[in-house]
Amino acid sequence: MIDQTRLPREVVFVTCRTYEQVAEAIRTMVIRGAPAIGVAAAMGVALGVASGGDLDRVCDTLARTRPTAVNLFWAIDRMKRLALSLSNRPAEEIRARLIEEALRIREQDIAINRSIGANGAPLVPDGKHVLTHCNAGALATAGYGTALGVIRAAAESGKKVAVYADETRPFLQGARLTAWELAQDGIPTTLITDNMAGYFLRKGDVGCVLVGADRIARNGDVANKIGTYSVAVLAKENSVPFYVAAPISTLDLTLAGGDEIPIEQRAASEVTHVFGVAVAPEGIGVANPAFDVTPHRYVTAIITEKGVARPPYTDSLPRLAALE
Amino acid sequence: MIDQTRLPREVVFVTCRTYEQVAEAIRTMVIRGAPAIGVAAAMGVALGVASGGDLDRVCDTLARTRPTAVNLFWAIDRMKRLALSLSNRPAEEIRARLIEEALRIREQDIAINRSIGANGAPLVPDGKHVLTHCNAGALATAGYGTALGVIRAAAESGKKVAVYADETRPFLQGARLTAWELAQDGIPTTLITDNMAGYFLRKGDVGCVLVGADRIARNGDVANKIGTYSVAVLAKENSVPFYVAAPISTLDLTLAGGDEIPIEQRAASEVTHVFGVAVAPEGIGVANPAFDVTPHRYVTAIITEKGVARPPYTDSLPRLAALE
Repeated sequence: MIDQTRLPREVVFVTCRTYEQVAEAIRTMVIRGAPAIGVAAAMGVALGVASGGDLDRVCDTLARTRPTAVNLFWAIDRMKRLALSLSNRPAEEIRARLIEEALRIREQDIAINRSIGANGAPLVPDGKHVLTHCNAGALATAGYGTALGVIRAAAESGKKVAVYADETRPFLQGARLTAWELAQDGIPTTLITDNMAGYFLRKGDVGCVLVGADRIARNGDVANKIGTYSVAVLAKENSVPFYVAAPISTLDLTLAGGDEIPIEQRAASEVTHVFGVAVAPEGIGVANPAFDVTPHRYVTAIITEKGVARPPYTDSLPRLAALE
Repeated sequence: MIDQTRLPREVVFVTCRTYEQVAEAIRTMVIRGAPAIGVAAAMGVALGVASGGDLDRVCDTLARTRPTAVNLFWAIDRMKRLALSLSNRPAEEIRARLIEEALRIREQDIAINRSIGANGAPLVPDGKHVLTHCNAGALATAGYGTALGVIRAAAESGKKVAVYADETRPFLQGARLTAWELAQDGIPTTLITDNMAGYFLRKGDVGCVLVGADRIARNGDVANKIGTYSVAVLAKENSVPFYVAAPISTLDLTLAGGDEIPIEQRAASEVTHVFGVAVAPEGIGVANPAFDVTPHRYVTAIITEKGVARPPYTDSLPRLAALE
């Protein structure tokens, strides 16, 4: 995997040889993005079990890395169910089937992103800016991206698309990852600090907001990178559509609403230091919630690989999820 | 003056020996904050004229440093009017009177901040957090501060006050200056990234928002540090009062509304680099508006040294300004 903590300054690939290394890579955000950590966790399960690790121990270790994105648990559960169904089979077969399944999850994720892109592209206005927050791109998935996949599909369909990328403090996924990805694709991108999003939304040159998601409750409340809620409120205040692009595996239909979604609190040093450089006085109190919840009333539509869900989400989301 | 670009890592004092050095210190934000640059500009006029500089040239040089904060022009005009009224007096007297006037502006600013604090303190809820953006503290003024002056006065009056300080990208005035000031005063402060403000406003533990201002139009529209508009919208959405604390010299009653206020656009490097460290890919497009305008409908009240203005501001602001 690309070490995402070192982008855009250097492109370094990390090879994980144990499931513990995979867990550590997820925890330290060497790999991040809900779909990407789902794929990584699936590969971690395959790696751990294939190396003779105990299934429960492997799955628990991988599950205890990050609490908010549900794709992690979805992927681990899928692998675990397969492993249990094979429990009376020879070790060699279990090993082969788990590896095959992890690779299938990766391939499916790319195909899912292509479908999300195709479903979302018609919603992107021609000749205006799309504002995005964090990185919901190829780096956050197995490839192509969810929110950035929609932007890519809109551009591929011939629309004139430019992007405002929120830098997304504290981890700077927008500045480091989204700007880097979109520059490689030749999609015109303007990097802004998070607190400029309101300025540009009010100015009127943003056609829509497009973000990914880490977990979506049954009622359409969306947990996503910290700051997403603010962008959603500002979009609504300025009558700009706010779209969420995510695979069905991001839905958590067991939760009635978003306030039940656990929000990860990360280390103070992510806020007080940037690439190791102190930006705040020593010893200052810090809060660092990594995600927030955007209530469904701010969400214009949720773009999935099976179609576009509109309010009321309590109807549309379960219906989409049940589609073959 | 303290070099504010080097805080909080080191406290370094800069001595300006020419008015051009004062202008450069304002332009490069060695000194910043609307009231503080007003005082610095007044001293720059005294320094320039006392050193034999041409009045118009000195004033023009100082006025061309930063376009948004009106206190700069207010202070230069005040000094210029005095100089012109003395034009038939001996050089020695002009020199002495200008220096005296600049020192008076400084002393008055401290007294004004104390009055703003006294007028604002009753508005601060007891036992809740105040959220502030940027630095409207002692560093942004001749002393005590506008928004932070209100917080200080509330704490001095015995209220239990804690602060959420937005870090305020790109220049990090919140992380570097507000956190540093409040830590010295022993006021409990939690540093957050700008995109976390919405999370804490929605959570319900913010009693009010308190910010400074760089220019206030006749209708109560407020130009202030980029991101202020976003905080104001989020405060309103969560029914949290949004207060602006500023001296009467920040009013620009010649402007009917905030959209006439010129917004300074600053260098891309402030966004792409943090203390010289690159945080974005080379060559990426960047926008860097240094201020935004918060429409008056989001402003609960404007706290001045002459009293608290409430909507409709077209009535209350001119009335306050006219008070002796």
